[in-house]
Amino acid sequence: MASWFSRRRPLVEIPRLKPRSEKRAATRVDLHELAPDLLGYLGQSAYLQLGVFESLSRAASAASDFDAKDGISRAAGLALAKYQGLVAEIRRRGDEPAAVMQPFAGAVDGFHAVVAGADWQECLLGVHVTAGLLDDFFIRLADGLTGDSGPRAAQLLGLDSGQDAVVQILRDAIAADPRLASRLAMWGRRLVGDTLLVARSALHHSKNLDSDEQRIEPIFTELIAAHTRRMDALGLTA
Amino acid sequence: MASWFSRRRPLVEIPRLKPRSEKRAATRVDLHELAPDLLGYLGQSAYLQLGVFESLSRAASAASDFDAKDGISRAAGLALAKYQGLVAEIRRRGDEPAAVMQPFAGAVDGFHAVVAGADWQECLLGVHVTAGLLDDFFIRLADGLTGDSGPRAAQLLGLDSGQDAVVQILRDAIAADPRLASRLAMWGRRLVGDTLLVARSALHHSKNLDSDEQRIEPIFTELIAAHTRRMDALGLTA
Repeated sequence: MASWFSRRRPLVEIPRLKPRSEKRAATRVDLHELAPDLLGYLGQSAYLQLGVFESLSRAASAASDFDAKDGISRAAGLALAKYQGLVAEIRRRGDEPAAVMQPFAGAVDGFHAVVAGADWQECLLGVHVTAGLLDDFFIRLADGLTGDSGPRAAQLLGLDSGQDAVVQILRDAIAADPRLASRLAMWGRRLVGDTLLVARSALHHSKNLDSDEQRIEPIFTELIAAHTRRMDALGLTA
Repeated sequence: MASWFSRRRPLVEIPRLKPRSEKRAATRVDLHELAPDLLGYLGQSAYLQLGVFESLSRAASAASDFDAKDGISRAAGLALAKYQGLVAEIRRRGDEPAAVMQPFAGAVDGFHAVVAGADWQECLLGVHVTAGLLDDFFIRLADGLTGDSGPRAAQLLGLDSGQDAVVQILRDAIAADPRLASRLAMWGRRLVGDTLLVARSALHHSKNLDSDEQRIEPIFTELIAAHTRRMDALGLTA
């Protein structure tokens, strides 16, 4: 079903930052050679946002607490707005969104089926950390695109995703059930490899895969560091 | 689970309009005596919209066609916006949305569990016709509320709900599978009784139930006529 399921999974080393509060300058990496064609970029990032919307809606339905429903459904609405903005960008170029998203449907559906987890807490943590990582990644990747669609897409992806409320909902859930902490910590770790594979699938690879790896590696290190900070903010060990 | 499940279900006579294109003047009915208190109104209508959002999100996830996903998720986003507007109205009054919606959760959840149907087509038709009927009803009911929250709520409920795209998606689905028409026609008929019970549950009843019934009956007749037009627009017999 999802082509990336069969790929070799990289062993992901998750570096811990110390001190955690230290601000890090974004590594300068020239992404032009690794950047996908614009339509592929828009199609994949749009379909990913649609999946985020669907996963968050499902988590909102499954959550029994009103405040949780409220915060999660708001985050779902914000992901839907990002999806709609990216689709509008595809239409602005005269292309058909369905055809542009189609090549990514299988892999992204498979990915979100994994992220969904076993219950709404796993789903919510899963979406929070994977969409956080992929938004960061696609924003970086937009640097390598030509024309003005890239900056517009990056601006859309950088909009509020309602994460403050999501973090609070997850913290409350963990406080109410301390056993949840270790389960969610494991779940967050589990998802990093799959998420990086989705990111990797967006890259346009040259003939020299080793040189591609060297080029992208500092960005992946940053993405994982940001993931670690996201887990930290929840009181979870990455 | 839902208190209205145990109530006696009315036999619903669905009048067919002829000619169908004839514009009908809204019946003048004084709703002040039947109108619920404002907070109850806001809580029930907000929670209903949240349920519409959840049902439509589920239908969008289940639909396999991109254009269907696109149109249904847009409708879900519009229901979410109505929910958020109604919740903002509750907050503006200094009340806590969770507490205000709580009394309606059981009945509305039960109602939407029925509306969900057996597949995304039933779910979509179900939401389209029940939300259409209930939006109409709550807009009428707002006339009976005191203060300026009523008009604001009615204005919110009257906003675009993305129904043009939903109608087209249902038509396409019916055209692609002719057997669907009779199943959806039956499904639409099946839901009218439950939907009118939800509407009825919003009314503040006086001691004289017979006089209440006489007062509300012309409105219900209108709601059912509008339902018939909605089914007609899909080529389905109400």
